[in-house]
Amino acid sequence: MEKRNAFYAQSGGVTAVINATACGVIETARKHKDRIGKVYAGRNGILGALTEDLIDTSRESARAIAALKHTPSGAFGSCRYKLKSIEENSAQYERLMEVFQAHDIGYFFYNGGGDSQDTSHKVSQLSRKMGYPIQCIGIPKTVDNDLPVTDNCPGFGSVAKYVAVSIREAAFDVKSMAETSTKVFVMEVMGRHAGWIAAAGGLAGENEGDAPHVILFPEIAFDRRRFLARVKKCVKHYGYCVVCVSEGARFANGKFLADAGSTDAFGHKQLGGVAPVVADMIKQAHGYKYHWAVADYLQRAARHIASKTDVEQAYAMGRAAVQFALRGETAILPVIVRTSNKPYRWKIGSTTLARVANREKMMPRNYITRDGFGITQRCRTYLAPLIRGEAYPPYSNGLPNYIQLKNTPVPKKLATKFRV
Amino acid sequence: MEKRNAFYAQSGGVTAVINATACGVIETARKHKDRIGKVYAGRNGILGALTEDLIDTSRESARAIAALKHTPSGAFGSCRYKLKSIEENSAQYERLMEVFQAHDIGYFFYNGGGDSQDTSHKVSQLSRKMGYPIQCIGIPKTVDNDLPVTDNCPGFGSVAKYVAVSIREAAFDVKSMAETSTKVFVMEVMGRHAGWIAAAGGLAGENEGDAPHVILFPEIAFDRRRFLARVKKCVKHYGYCVVCVSEGARFANGKFLADAGSTDAFGHKQLGGVAPVVADMIKQAHGYKYHWAVADYLQRAARHIASKTDVEQAYAMGRAAVQFALRGETAILPVIVRTSNKPYRWKIGSTTLARVANREKMMPRNYITRDGFGITQRCRTYLAPLIRGEAYPPYSNGLPNYIQLKNTPVPKKLATKFRV
Repeated sequence: MEKRNAFYAQSGGVTAVINATACGVIETARKHKDRIGKVYAGRNGILGALTEDLIDTSRESARAIAALKHTPSGAFGSCRYKLKSIEENSAQYERLMEVFQAHDIGYFFYNGGGDSQDTSHKVSQLSRKMGYPIQCIGIPKTVDNDLPVTDNCPGFGSVAKYVAVSIREAAFDVKSMAETSTKVFVMEVMGRHAGWIAAAGGLAGENEGDAPHVILFPEIAFDRRRFLARVKKCVKHYGYCVVCVSEGARFANGKFLADAGSTDAFGHKQLGGVAPVVADMIKQAHGYKYHWAVADYLQRAARHIASKTDVEQAYAMGRAAVQFALRGETAILPVIVRTSNKPYRWKIGSTTLARVANREKMMPRNYITRDGFGITQRCRTYLAPLIRGEAYPPYSNGLPNYIQLKNTPVPKKLATKFRV
Repeated sequence: MEKRNAFYAQSGGVTAVINATACGVIETARKHKDRIGKVYAGRNGILGALTEDLIDTSRESARAIAALKHTPSGAFGSCRYKLKSIEENSAQYERLMEVFQAHDIGYFFYNGGGDSQDTSHKVSQLSRKMGYPIQCIGIPKTVDNDLPVTDNCPGFGSVAKYVAVSIREAAFDVKSMAETSTKVFVMEVMGRHAGWIAAAGGLAGENEGDAPHVILFPEIAFDRRRFLARVKKCVKHYGYCVVCVSEGARFANGKFLADAGSTDAFGHKQLGGVAPVVADMIKQAHGYKYHWAVADYLQRAARHIASKTDVEQAYAMGRAAVQFALRGETAILPVIVRTSNKPYRWKIGSTTLARVANREKMMPRNYITRDGFGITQRCRTYLAPLIRGEAYPPYSNGLPNYIQLKNTPVPKKLATKFRV
């Protein structure tokens, strides 16, 4: 079979382990030089393809590529950029094909969430239509864990571990201060649409009375009165109360709690997230001293406390994507299939791009306790293995030794520029 | 010499390593059973002494006590409670003496910051005056690193490491998204009075262009115009800008930036910290998309990423305190003396409680760059060894295995109660 180049791009919000996937792709491709020429990465994701700004990963040493496995963020740059439909903007797709043809790209690996797999899907359709063969393989990634079909998404396990560890630690802190100081701690976590990350916070507590005492999910309409009563009860029983709130928590009318806050002198919406809103609500009602935290990017970038399971799965997805391509597959993506809970076992399966494009997987209702403030045993069984194992990066001078690649550009071959 | 009991208490905000100090105290005392009977801990710090609510640490196994070395927070409870002066409230001091006498306490170990050492100092004076001999030994602790005499304070190195690691990770994230998304990231760190923690954020960057690009110290009056110009320059040059802001950052008139925000419909001050204020200021001026994080307690509780140097020093301070007591010393506290930068070497020294009580150590001006936005080489030389080394806790099921002690109460001997 002829030897062709590969294109790899990272898409959407980055994670602690998306580079582990890149590592899996590149290392596996390098083992098959008879079939795969060079792996070109898109600088800033798909934008790099549109603007013919490709990175030649063959210029990186084996050691540098291996270091991607322990480096968070997107080593080649990612982007928030969704291609329009072919009907709306066929020029974008024609440009992609033009760039791919110019650089003899026969493999398209797109590492992202549901939106991105929609793009992969379109590219695969177009390639067929235009008679220019490209094997399009998606690779799952999202901290939100909301992709369908796959048991879980690479990126989620590490954010879940970060959130569970952080809540456990902060809870120990608050508990030891509660007698004379802070009684309520509110931690805001990511997940605008689905409560998977908030649910992971629930893993912090293993016994009756352990924090977090209340979880606020986007899936459960916020009820102020019931919430405040629960907080009061916790402070009374345990001496303190830890709340884990999803950024997507909302009222019954769909309005985000984060939007319920104040406006400033200029009429701007309050600057903060949902944590300060919830903390202040408690203060107004009960007078408890509070602290709150918003981890924001810290949670999805926290490679220092990544889940070993997550790192391994992220790498395996990258490797599987290349193996699928070598087998001649297209328009599919590898997924994680859980074969056993105890002991936790998983294997690699696959699904079609069409089945995952633009679809979100919500938390099942039976993962949330009846009162809406906690997670069920079923949820724990699902989540627990995903945060298991530590996979520490190497350190120099007390700091994690993350790689910054050279990211050497591939010489352009096209005379035309493309405006995005 | 006669055998007497010891009293140990944790005071003020807890840290990732104050329990390592407790471990040092208890393990060392247990090696000297001929001289030290039982170690009683105050439940919730000095409150436990005032209310005769003592914890019998002899009821804990050697294994449980050893586990304190890797457990954050205050295992016996801490408190924010400053004793008044003897003139103002002599009853408090008389009560302490009464409790100590009732439980045959001859050693008083007080683990805290400057305020707490003021208390230790007063107890030592009173013990002399009342003719009831107690050896009063302070033990330094504070994440703020603002105690005088000692080269650094146990608790600081770990928060410094957390902040530097977190900023490095978040910066990698922002950098990979900046082309089409977030261009500015603002991280708020602790340190209301001194900029030590903010300075530690500076360690995240080692090369020109590395984040953090701007540090806002409490020691440097905030200049809006210069700050905004600097942010703009960074985004232009590097494509993104990471700001590390101390919660104590303030204007030239002394007003905190965090107080400069909006008020809500009820006239309450804005709920957020300083990070959202700074982020919004940038958005208003330049229109950049931003994200911000407030780590709050997460930073001081983050035992999972504690500095090995810090853990060792925290333990050594506890051990030294007991050794000082056994040598008959009183009214002193152990301190860390740096004897060499390269290689980093330190030894244990001592100073008097009088010299540290109620005094704060500010950042020297020559630790901050001339423009006020960064740290100097001198500052790096000072800070670098304090975050060095990792000291991971053990994990079970993907979570750090922190100890919760039994905290068995010592039977009360006094008929009287004391209201605090």
